[in-house]
Amino acid sequence: MVNIENENPRYIKASRKFHKDNTVIKIDNETVIGDKDLMIIAGPCSVESYEQLIEIAKRVKKAGAKYLRGGVFKPRTSPYEFQGLGYEGLEILKRVREETGLKIVTEIMSVDDIELFEKEVDVIQVGSRNMQNFDLLKRLGKTKKPILLKRGLASTIEEWLLAAEYIMNEGNPNVILCERGIRTYETTTRNTLDISAIPLVKKVSHLPIIVDPSHASGIRWMIEPLSKAAVAAGADGLIIEVHNNPDKALSDGAQSVTPDMFDNIIKNVKIIATAVGRSV
Amino acid sequence: MVNIENENPRYIKASRKFHKDNTVIKIDNETVIGDKDLMIIAGPCSVESYEQLIEIAKRVKKAGAKYLRGGVFKPRTSPYEFQGLGYEGLEILKRVREETGLKIVTEIMSVDDIELFEKEVDVIQVGSRNMQNFDLLKRLGKTKKPILLKRGLASTIEEWLLAAEYIMNEGNPNVILCERGIRTYETTTRNTLDISAIPLVKKVSHLPIIVDPSHASGIRWMIEPLSKAAVAAGADGLIIEVHNNPDKALSDGAQSVTPDMFDNIIKNVKIIATAVGRSV
Amino acid sequence: MVNIENENPRYIKASRKFHKDNTVIKIDNETVIGDKDLMIIAGPCSVESYEQLIEIAKRVKKAGAKYLRGGVFKPRTSPYEFQGLGYEGLEILKRVREETGLKIVTEIMSVDDIELFEKEVDVIQVGSRNMQNFDLLKRLGKTKKPILLKRGLASTIEEWLLAAEYIMNEGNPNVILCERGIRTYETTTRNTLDISAIPLVKKVSHLPIIVDPSHASGIRWMIEPLSKAAVAAGADGLIIEVHNNPDKALSDGAQSVTPDMFDNIIKNVKIIATAVGRSV
Amino acid sequence: MVNIENENPRYIKASRKFHKDNTVIKIDNETVIGDKDLMIIAGPCSVESYEQLIEIAKRVKKAGAKYLRGGVFKPRTSPYEFQGLGYEGLEILKRVREETGLKIVTEIMSVDDIELFEKEVDVIQVGSRNMQNFDLLKRLGKTKKPILLKRGLASTIEEWLLAAEYIMNEGNPNVILCERGIRTYETTTRNTLDISAIPLVKKVSHLPIIVDPSHASGIRWMIEPLSKAAVAAGADGLIIEVHNNPDKALSDGAQSVTPDMFDNIIKNVKIIATAVGRSV
Repeated sequence: MVNIENENPRYIKASRKFHKDNTVIKIDNETVIGDKDLMIIAGPCSVESYEQLIEIAKRVKKAGAKYLRGGVFKPRTSPYEFQGLGYEGLEILKRVREETGLKIVTEIMSVDDIELFEKEVDVIQVGSRNMQNFDLLKRLGKTKKPILLKRGLASTIEEWLLAAEYIMNEGNPNVILCERGIRTYETTTRNTLDISAIPLVKKVSHLPIIVDPSHASGIRWMIEPLSKAAVAAGADGLIIEVHNNPDKALSDGAQSVTPDMFDNIIKNVKIIATAVGRSV
Repeated sequence: MVNIENENPRYIKASRKFHKDNTVIKIDNETVIGDKDLMIIAGPCSVESYEQLIEIAKRVKKAGAKYLRGGVFKPRTSPYEFQGLGYEGLEILKRVREETGLKIVTEIMSVDDIELFEKEVDVIQVGSRNMQNFDLLKRLGKTKKPILLKRGLASTIEEWLLAAEYIMNEGNPNVILCERGIRTYETTTRNTLDISAIPLVKKVSHLPIIVDPSHASGIRWMIEPLSKAAVAAGADGLIIEVHNNPDKALSDGAQSVTPDMFDNIIKNVKIIATAVGRSV
Repeated sequence: MVNIENENPRYIKASRKFHKDNTVIKIDNETVIGDKDLMIIAGPCSVESYEQLIEIAKRVKKAGAKYLRGGVFKPRTSPYEFQGLGYEGLEILKRVREETGLKIVTEIMSVDDIELFEKEVDVIQVGSRNMQNFDLLKRLGKTKKPILLKRGLASTIEEWLLAAEYIMNEGNPNVILCERGIRTYETTTRNTLDISAIPLVKKVSHLPIIVDPSHASGIRWMIEPLSKAAVAAGADGLIIEVHNNPDKALSDGAQSVTPDMFDNIIKNVKIIATAVGRSV
Repeated sequence: MVNIENENPRYIKASRKFHKDNTVIKIDNETVIGDKDLMIIAGPCSVESYEQLIEIAKRVKKAGAKYLRGGVFKPRTSPYEFQGLGYEGLEILKRVREETGLKIVTEIMSVDDIELFEKEVDVIQVGSRNMQNFDLLKRLGKTKKPILLKRGLASTIEEWLLAAEYIMNEGNPNVILCERGIRTYETTTRNTLDISAIPLVKKVSHLPIIVDPSHASGIRWMIEPLSKAAVAAGADGLIIEVHNNPDKALSDGAQSVTPDMFDNIIKNVKIIATAVGRSV
């Protein structure tokens, strides 16, 4: 076993040894990440159309989400799969933000988009596949945007914190970690949610950590119990895939919940949140 | 991904398709497994002496445990490590049961001990290393004792349920599953607690499932957040290593909590239990 | 990384530090394990009938095998799968041995069979699922029979050598290790052949190590390249599943080769063996 | 198990179904990849100085290597580790190429360097961490350079071939696959060399595949047996870390061999190569 409570961690700026208080990231007075209130991000895997997005956005906002997720550049395993709407999708995200007030979270795939994303996006997501794309990390470190850094699919906790360190070392302290399941021999679920990562990260780092039960499980009905477990273990938020018509989703339908299911998930997560002194 | 909601599971007696209601195992009126009340098992990794065990037993009973764990035959990786007190340890367990009223849970290593364990032990534990020791499973299937079947360290959910099926198919329906962490590339923790296993097992099987956060993490301070997560995810109980002097424990000291820590764990687990409609 | 060249290994009798020369196990003058000549074991997954076994046995003998494998007690994942012919299968193995002169290798599942196996079997196999069935290991340590100890499906090299130590520490030095693939996230093959285990074991231990490409890959046509790789890496032998009619085999048909394929495998393995100073 | 011999693979251009003959990539008349002659790449993990590189280059050329590796932009886990000499390192590589005639192989980290690398480098390496950096892959697909695509540390064979497809689908057919070990629970070696990947890739794809025993094992003395195994299994080449003073290497010293060791490795690999109808 690696000694996580090492006296001399390889990460400095991400370490709680050198920054005792929890990092709190403030987007505006209403949307603050890493405080008592949980960060709830919801929305479709991919932005498919304005009609789709506005419908989902209104529902998740009503249920309690303050952040809208939606992929416009999609990192798909095969080049022949739907690659996202691209810049057109970003325009849709912006329009829906304007109409709902939800902050937007979307994944960046290319360093060429950093300037645009810095201007237009509220939280920039770095996906699992790019967790050690050091060129991308360093350049995001030169912005001041909140970066949602997903754990690589076979990354250790230390490698993940060192990826955060790449961003922080360039001057951007606003990193949010996201546990999204790791790859193991067990294939009943899409990935294995590493629930222990939550208390571990909270112990050794001051950065906020949220959980993605959708990618962790790949199974719609499992989002609720995993969300409750994540909050009970100390997670600072959740990112959940919601689709108005999951069975017709252009990507990740099997793991997307309906708006009705999302209402129910949030209702039950609130009970756990209250039990551990948090709020939604 | 394996389709866990398969129409034709390979396990029959363990399947919820063929037995819709939750299995409830009654030891006596006070100790019922699989109902609303959580099964809390606590105690040292190894029984070391009467003095050690009685001290721990009184404390964990006071905190709310109804079951006392304690290894007397220990499956140690090396033949040169402490192998347990053997039958002498069993006598100590029995004496402490008599004095405290706690039910006793201990691991079986040899088919030759089945007759004795059937007579003397309340819940017989099958350890991870023996999860597919089919000779042992079949013979335990001929008893009526509750069997605590730990998941093998690299077993799939399906293999685990089929191991339960080996016991049930011989006539013993009293199987309790125990998730204790799986082996993955991540070595920051001793094992990776597969929290998804809980809702999965509850979905496809009617058997009770409890969680062992001690072996899952190998880290003392992590028992509390993992216990809370397990209960939030729907676990039917917990098995926790408690030692009066963890740093001097003959085995597994690093993951054993003190009685004071255990008090606190149970206090906080109760809050989560209440939030999800369970009790301790 | 674990330091395999540790000054103080936890295994003593299995360590090359305490026994510099390779262990050589002599069954008779013709069949010696761990010397220059490779140990070639071949035969069906399960003994199905005398007719099946004698046909396969004659062919594999002609191709160069000196050992006949054949399961009679089968460790099947499900209790509803074919469990082997039991003692009747053992009688068939004995009869075929008498008629062909091949030594017989079969798996033990129960401590109750040790006395019989000690008398009747030439090499006793301990399967992956029982690698840490310490009760079984200790009792086999009281015999003098060669024990073929398969690696557990998620065992580290150290755990495997310590399992050998359990046998050796009771007085039986005749342990043959068998690498049969480990469980990883990669499911294109049944398991992942850990080819590095061969030079590692040869470095830190004096025990012979053979390779099971059939279980490692689960794919018939892959047996040949993996066998060649194993011998090139320094393996002391191979155990290969051969069936006269693989598509109708009662178990493991997909990974069984035909006698014709086996001829070809041995022909090509011989070329590699010669290149590395070994013989078949 | 995934069926690798699927009728309808998700990769098209990388599939042997649609391109029956082995891909052969010709750099010049002397350096052809994917034919009978093995592609031997050798050199230091990082280019450290002209003196270091020329000394190593002369030795590996004499031993039989035709390609010189050397990192100038290094993907290091921590931002505080040596990041490579950058463009200065590339100048050193070019100077040594001019003086020795060796082709140069180096890793690309940023899309901004593609134009430069296309002009100056003979084979462009994409490291494991960038195997699914789709932006980088697509842009490399617009060049005609040979791309050495390392397998991601937890990628399946299918994901790897689909990453190659991203490059090929943009118009660049010159992809060389490199198996470099996968991440598993076994930590005795740095990674687990997936030897089965070689015959699998040769079966389902026409692309050349080479092996990196240095990163696969992380252990200097293990390079030789793993190289022999790789060639016996059908690999089209090897990439080996060689350093004139491994214990003082700025990166990966523990897995770097000395020039003397490299001489010996090639001598022994030649014997296996001859045995399987290949040459060095």
